Amino acid sequence: MHVGFIGLGIMGAPMALNIRKRGHTLTVYNRTPGKDRALIAAGAKAVSAPQDIGAVDVLITCVADGPAEEAMLFESGLIDRLPKECIHVSCTTLGVDTARKLTAGHNKRGRVFVAAPVLGRAVDMAPAGKLFVIAAGPPDAIARCMPLFDAVGQRTFTFGPDPANAIAVKLAVNFMGLTNIEGMAEAFALTAQYGVDRSAFYEFLTNTLFSTPLYKSYGKLIEQDNFTPANFAVPLGLKDIKLAIEAAERVNLALPAANVVRDHLVQAIAQGYREEDWSVIARVVANNLKAPPR
Amino acid sequence: MHVGFIGLGIMGAPMALNIRKRGHTLTVYNRTPGKDRALIAAGAKAVSAPQDIGAVDVLITCVADGPAEEAMLFESGLIDRLPKECIHVSCTTLGVDTARKLTAGHNKRGRVFVAAPVLGRAVDMAPAGKLFVIAAGPPDAIARCMPLFDAVGQRTFTFGPDPANAIAVKLAVNFMGLTNIEGMAEAFALTAQYGVDRSAFYEFLTNTLFSTPLYKSYGKLIEQDNFTPANFAVPLGLKDIKLAIEAAERVNLALPAANVVRDHLVQAIAQGYREEDWSVIARVVANNLKAPPR
Amino acid sequence: MHVGFIGLGIMGAPMALNIRKRGHTLTVYNRTPGKDRALIAAGAKAVSAPQDIGAVDVLITCVADGPAEEAMLFESGLIDRLPKECIHVSCTTLGVDTARKLTAGHNKRGRVFVAAPVLGRAVDMAPAGKLFVIAAGPPDAIARCMPLFDAVGQRTFTFGPDPANAIAVKLAVNFMGLTNIEGMAEAFALTAQYGVDRSAFYEFLTNTLFSTPLYKSYGKLIEQDNFTPANFAVPLGLKDIKLAIEAAERVNLALPAANVVRDHLVQAIAQGYREEDWSVIARVVANNLKAPPR
Amino acid sequence: MHVGFIGLGIMGAPMALNIRKRGHTLTVYNRTPGKDRALIAAGAKAVSAPQDIGAVDVLITCVADGPAEEAMLFESGLIDRLPKECIHVSCTTLGVDTARKLTAGHNKRGRVFVAAPVLGRAVDMAPAGKLFVIAAGPPDAIARCMPLFDAVGQRTFTFGPDPANAIAVKLAVNFMGLTNIEGMAEAFALTAQYGVDRSAFYEFLTNTLFSTPLYKSYGKLIEQDNFTPANFAVPLGLKDIKLAIEAAERVNLALPAANVVRDHLVQAIAQGYREEDWSVIARVVANNLKAPPR
Repeated sequence: MHVGFIGLGIMGAPMALNIRKRGHTLTVYNRTPGKDRALIAAGAKAVSAPQDIGAVDVLITCVADGPAEEAMLFESGLIDRLPKECIHVSCTTLGVDTARKLTAGHNKRGRVFVAAPVLGRAVDMAPAGKLFVIAAGPPDAIARCMPLFDAVGQRTFTFGPDPANAIAVKLAVNFMGLTNIEGMAEAFALTAQYGVDRSAFYEFLTNTLFSTPLYKSYGKLIEQDNFTPANFAVPLGLKDIKLAIEAAERVNLALPAANVVRDHLVQAIAQGYREEDWSVIARVVANNLKAPPR
Repeated sequence: MHVGFIGLGIMGAPMALNIRKRGHTLTVYNRTPGKDRALIAAGAKAVSAPQDIGAVDVLITCVADGPAEEAMLFESGLIDRLPKECIHVSCTTLGVDTARKLTAGHNKRGRVFVAAPVLGRAVDMAPAGKLFVIAAGPPDAIARCMPLFDAVGQRTFTFGPDPANAIAVKLAVNFMGLTNIEGMAEAFALTAQYGVDRSAFYEFLTNTLFSTPLYKSYGKLIEQDNFTPANFAVPLGLKDIKLAIEAAERVNLALPAANVVRDHLVQAIAQGYREEDWSVIARVVANNLKAPPR
Repeated sequence: MHVGFIGLGIMGAPMALNIRKRGHTLTVYNRTPGKDRALIAAGAKAVSAPQDIGAVDVLITCVADGPAEEAMLFESGLIDRLPKECIHVSCTTLGVDTARKLTAGHNKRGRVFVAAPVLGRAVDMAPAGKLFVIAAGPPDAIARCMPLFDAVGQRTFTFGPDPANAIAVKLAVNFMGLTNIEGMAEAFALTAQYGVDRSAFYEFLTNTLFSTPLYKSYGKLIEQDNFTPANFAVPLGLKDIKLAIEAAERVNLALPAANVVRDHLVQAIAQGYREEDWSVIARVVANNLKAPPR
Repeated sequence: MHVGFIGLGIMGAPMALNIRKRGHTLTVYNRTPGKDRALIAAGAKAVSAPQDIGAVDVLITCVADGPAEEAMLFESGLIDRLPKECIHVSCTTLGVDTARKLTAGHNKRGRVFVAAPVLGRAVDMAPAGKLFVIAAGPPDAIARCMPLFDAVGQRTFTFGPDPANAIAVKLAVNFMGLTNIEGMAEAFALTAQYGVDRSAFYEFLTNTLFSTPLYKSYGKLIEQDNFTPANFAVPLGLKDIKLAIEAAERVNLALPAANVVRDHLVQAIAQGYREEDWSVIARVVANNLKAPPR
């Protein structure tokens, strides 16, 4: 298959490489230059503008967010230059509005769109091809893309023909992850106020009911009150929780637990934690116990 | 050791039996008569009033809540009749106020108090002696009780000399469990509104980042929108989350995520779900999408 | 009428004086000695224990809170010594639980109870006899007490035969006042972050839609970021909002706006503002913008 | 002065008429045709496209929201056709992002922008020229516009040179109004659950501490549980509270009370109350007490 791949960031680069390793023809583009070197070395062709991606069978995009996605497709003019039978697969965590705009934009041009955001750690699961793929779109398009999903992920979950559904699922799990962090952050603050040893509490949590990688990794950061370098920085978490709240509002649903998380992430930015991991929520919660100097 | 055991409910009965199986002399009391039969058959002696529990080395209480605990100890007069060197171990999920009242009450009488609430499912982990014990109290008292903790649990975690610390830890983990349920409840509502298949979403969650027993068991109830019989009924969840909020307030801490859970449990009772499992929060969240008849 | 009056604080003392000025026979008691001097000078008789209040026609209590009320009535034994035909009128802002306990306690003794919390500023409205009285209880008892209500207040509002109703109303308006403060606090923080002049904003608010005494007085404190001396100190506000949340829970209602206020008052105490006016919520909200030193 | 006026809705039409009555030359445009008749009868000239508004000294826009405002100015091309010395005054309740886009757009063209949202009831205060004007922008531009503000309002409040400040103030007061409604809604639910008569509670509130027009008008709707016709419909309230939350986020501030209001307005739409007055929040709160049919 001839695959176009736009977005060679920390998640996209290893995904593209895994696709290339399966023998597919690969044309890549990245906004920031130089990120394409490893891909070129592996035999990919690089282009210098998104609209030059060429006559690909499948276009995969894996960029920062919805606005970046729209810039690549609409503003560059790429959406008018893709072959009609090409499938556009977006692995970006889009908002539902962008997903719908892309669906409509492609459909209008007789083309189909598949949303396929991925779940998993960029640092190890992506290079190992062990991501989880969350796909929604026309079933035959998904079937055609399955070899590519298999190249990047350990398992693909499909959620029906509407691409927005995959987005809803991705935003829902990111939100669930954040509620885990929020609950743990408040729990650490509570026990610490009673003088409970932080390491003992961490040891307890992660060896009883809360033994997932999520609790282990973020719990460690909270235990040590050290949130750099970030696995997932505060502004990314804020973007995602806002997209979840927005996606819920589009279907007239309130997500009260999401408001709590969102407010803490906003406060994290106000308090200077923009570069920290999103689990810095724990410090924000603890900060409420002391007044800043006047 | 001569052990007194008060409270032979769904959690206490198998714990007492496991203690008896280790060969300890056991005297038991339960408010509702008849619950002591299995214990008597196993060689325990039963008494008909708490104050008659006798000259025990260790008194273990495992009752419904703080008021029940206070009734057993203070109102019955038992606290004045226990031997001075007896250790009182409470496995009840008390509030911190009750824990402090018991600590003071025993100390005034030259005796020590250990809080040792347990974590784990009553239905299988308790009979198997596989509970987790969360203990706090004077270190030598805990050391003396360790054979008993080993009889009921797979591992004992200790949290310092102040019994209130064990309570803070227990309330914190129950609260964390409830935030898991809350996040999952809202996530199901969000994806369902987009038309995502509930079973597919459950399958996805429990096979990716959220594969703990907690997500699996409560997620199943949510997926099937069927919350009876309850693992843990709404009023019990409400009691626990209120105790967590109260414990936090005693140390001047707000728990905003706990408020969200609490309000949904209050609404669950208003909406007639008193007998349902606490994961009925998912239905309460979904109910917000429709108006009741006027 | 022979009136007993217990509780000569900042609110109770001027109320008692206004009753005495109407010519009623008055016997008073206050826990802290010396507060009864002005009343004695005005012709009241003082007793040194609540149970000695004597054969009064009406007993009025105006103490700090429910526990103080229960101490006066139950622990002192007074409830067993009051004449059977005596009416007990409590002007204390009780919780609904205490109101019900008092109702039951008096009814059991063939006596009636009236809840009559008052609304208005202690500093000027109480001395002027211009309070608002919120009364609920048996209609004939209220009718008999009306001359006393007229002595202390400009208007009496009645809310049916159940004393708990007056409590519900009082807690509801205190809660509404706190939501005014909360909204104004957040609004000041929002506009201040944009660089809007605080005085200009205050001038604007109080001359347009928000021209009540409440906005004027608390808005002034917020504008000047100066919350001492307190009109109504943080712990009193916290007590009242907790009673509102509890009263709501007794009837299976959640009050989400009350949670927000409550959490900010809890944080106010954590941040050292125990002595400040409850409108210090504004500073708590603003403090979220800065991290305390680590 | 030659004034251009775009947006002849329920608020804009009486404002334009009051300006015309002061003798200013007036050119008007409204998207929906026919709304300009009363203005034409009063001597205004009507144009059929916004970009044809002509060589006006001041352009006033008073449209539905930010997107409508951007359509009028940018998409129509009007922003490139206005005279350089023309002042654009927007009375629309914009978001801060739109205000900043307009400020930059005009500045780039050597022109100035003034934000001047208005406060007051469209039905009586607008026709009477008794609105409150909330103005921010370059001081000399505001000075030049003052005769126009005097024509429409009883008083103009100014908030510095940055147009975004007027927006922040407007969003802040709308938010404060909504917290009044929220608090009252929850208070009605609380007292009603205790059986307090709704009319008695309304009478009490509006004759004691809560005697503003806002409490009187919205309280009446709540008392009667009748929310049509709407003074201010749910989607408008939702738009405004979302703009307040967004404006706060732009300056890293969380508004927890706004989240509560927002969620209730989202639920109002889900429950079919899109056409009702925003005080239907009271019904949403009460609906939580009952489950919808399954």
